Amino acid sequence: MTDYTRFLSPMGRQLHESAIRRMGTVVAREKDVVSFAPGYPDPSSFPWDELREIADRVLSGADPEVLQYGATRGYAPLIETVVDVLSSRDIAADRDQVVITSGSQQGLDLVSRVLVAAGDVVLVELPAYTGAISAFGNAQARFAGVRQDEDGINLEHLDEVCQRERQAGGRVNLLYLVPNFQNPTGLLLGLEKRRRLLEWAGRRDVLIIEDDPYGALYFDDVAGEDETRAIKADDDDGRVIYLSTFSKTLAPGLRVGWMVAPSSLADRFETAKQSVDLTTGSLDQRIVHEATRAGTIDRVVPKLRALYRAKRDVLQSALLAEIGGGLSWTHPKGGFFLWARLPAGVDDRSLLARALEQRVVFVTGSAFYVDGSGHDRIRLSFSAPAPERIREGVRRLAVALRQPVASERATG
Amino acid sequence: MTDYTRFLSPMGRQLHESAIRRMGTVVAREKDVVSFAPGYPDPSSFPWDELREIADRVLSGADPEVLQYGATRGYAPLIETVVDVLSSRDIAADRDQVVITSGSQQGLDLVSRVLVAAGDVVLVELPAYTGAISAFGNAQARFAGVRQDEDGINLEHLDEVCQRERQAGGRVNLLYLVPNFQNPTGLLLGLEKRRRLLEWAGRRDVLIIEDDPYGALYFDDVAGEDETRAIKADDDDGRVIYLSTFSKTLAPGLRVGWMVAPSSLADRFETAKQSVDLTTGSLDQRIVHEATRAGTIDRVVPKLRALYRAKRDVLQSALLAEIGGGLSWTHPKGGFFLWARLPAGVDDRSLLARALEQRVVFVTGSAFYVDGSGHDRIRLSFSAPAPERIREGVRRLAVALRQPVASERATG
Repeated sequence: MTDYTRFLSPMGRQLHESAIRRMGTVVAREKDVVSFAPGYPDPSSFPWDELREIADRVLSGADPEVLQYGATRGYAPLIETVVDVLSSRDIAADRDQVVITSGSQQGLDLVSRVLVAAGDVVLVELPAYTGAISAFGNAQARFAGVRQDEDGINLEHLDEVCQRERQAGGRVNLLYLVPNFQNPTGLLLGLEKRRRLLEWAGRRDVLIIEDDPYGALYFDDVAGEDETRAIKADDDDGRVIYLSTFSKTLAPGLRVGWMVAPSSLADRFETAKQSVDLTTGSLDQRIVHEATRAGTIDRVVPKLRALYRAKRDVLQSALLAEIGGGLSWTHPKGGFFLWARLPAGVDDRSLLARALEQRVVFVTGSAFYVDGSGHDRIRLSFSAPAPERIREGVRRLAVALRQPVASERATG
Repeated sequence: MTDYTRFLSPMGRQLHESAIRRMGTVVAREKDVVSFAPGYPDPSSFPWDELREIADRVLSGADPEVLQYGATRGYAPLIETVVDVLSSRDIAADRDQVVITSGSQQGLDLVSRVLVAAGDVVLVELPAYTGAISAFGNAQARFAGVRQDEDGINLEHLDEVCQRERQAGGRVNLLYLVPNFQNPTGLLLGLEKRRRLLEWAGRRDVLIIEDDPYGALYFDDVAGEDETRAIKADDDDGRVIYLSTFSKTLAPGLRVGWMVAPSSLADRFETAKQSVDLTTGSLDQRIVHEATRAGTIDRVVPKLRALYRAKRDVLQSALLAEIGGGLSWTHPKGGFFLWARLPAGVDDRSLLARALEQRVVFVTGSAFYVDGSGHDRIRLSFSAPAPERIREGVRRLAVALRQPVASERATG
């Protein structure tokens, strides 16, 4: 018995594989690869000493709950902590609106399960985060892509696409957005657009899924905290489901994120989570709670802004020095990503094949597009590699860019 | 905007809530409640000192991967460790057949998503674990219940139900079983039945989901390790998907379980997991790996067998002393649960209401039945409460049993 195809569900037959995760598997197998692929934080930024001390303290055995099953909604003191974090972002949330999730990817999955019926149309940007495309796609969503401007999603196109899909009979309930330093483009959504989006969502009766992993990581040469104001902060009408995480500000190996939603929806996300994983890790939640309360995150985040800004600069300088006009991109104002446009005629997939030969990887632009386009783009993550590795990776990328593949030679 | 019903998916409208998890919320709210409800391990059994020392070591910062995102399939050395654990259970599994999961509840969820289409019929025992009912139910499965004998599932009824459902047009691909110390009954599936089940699954082209959280926890006055032999151990034909966990032998607050499946299915579970939570907690996986390699689990498990056997005895003695013939049950041979039959005319739900007034809780029998029956049963977990609390809980339960409710009085 080797063919199990007949046993598969519709989802099992059409699983959306993550291009980023697949790339991680490649990198793990090969030696000495410079990876611009996954959006991993720099592990040198993790507050190892403080986390070790916290773990030592909470594992004393004094509180048996630290290693026990916990409430599906989350560790109650951590929920209080998240309410305070939200308050510092001008988001007024009650405890009953918060659900602790096993990373914010789980928030996307819970949204997709509770709110997406097979065949529903989900509005996403062109391009959009692949993890969201996978989560919604695995719930059998269809997608409608919306163009971006330099300050984020194009509102006229958004309305046009929404109405077109509805007129064609589509159920269009959700818009998915990463307003701050979007994955993959790094774009920052304009403040005026945020306000207009809320109005639009009310007028068109759409819910906004606001995914905000990078908001705290603005680069203060070109962006300020006030420009990262969450859409949720002005959501008087319960139109926004807000997702965030401790993965980028503390450590992703502790799988702790959260979602904020109107309480009746939060209740449903909690119930769905019961059958998904019962509870987020108790030790992880405890460590994150203690680190936040001790001020660890507040101390670390300014350093992270400086660290990633410096790495962005290293990447940009190296690209200019090694590749020059061969690539073009928008200056990242925060976050982990540089989104580059390839020279005319270069395809993202064939460049990746050549780059792999040079032992450097990135994520193909097309992985982020629900409309099959994007082959003229690549995403370079500058967050994880050390500066010298960034420079080495760019040298290798330059070699790959100078080597046209056979098929490209043949066709012109 | 307060009614979000119009936004819900079919799953979101009909979420299966866990009776056990709901009970946990009740207990967390009330003071001084004796809980026989959730199948929580005894936290005094957790190897606090060893886990604290391991956490201290792995959080040194020497290995940056400890707090980083990890491979979706799992931490490679832990997969090797799991292969060895499986080998000690006579299960020959390759690495590419193993997926590390965020608790074995996630294994159930991944199975339900990859293998259950809306409307599929899943075969389950009467009664069956509520977490499995929720996971399959949230994938829009229908259920067909199969009767049990004293040595587990009735094979004749199983075949009859399977054929009846198929003749009625149902897609019947999966049988879900907990062969060792079943949740909720504590039953041990007979060895001969395990062999016959494999033959049956081949003949009827069905996959068996073998859920084995309790196998190591046999009580050696009445059961031996040889009686817990996994069905998977004799699965030459790739008919069995095997789930297990470190939650009952180490600690559930570290969310680490695993699944073993034919590699082509394991690949699909991994892909599905990408969009579910990206990865199981890296620190949790590292701690579990180190603890297993250091022999912690091998040292702890014999103590757990003695601990839970002693608690079973405390519960049984207290029930006999306080309630006598009012309840009847099968002597548990292992695991966490005593499955009791109520006196004639007593309903599980009304008894629970009275028990709550006495500050003692359990899970209603009917929560475990997919056919609406089971109101003459309750599940008492003896694993978590201390012996004195078990005795106190039984005293309270005895009071509740002596107080018939108004409606029962009225109807006779």
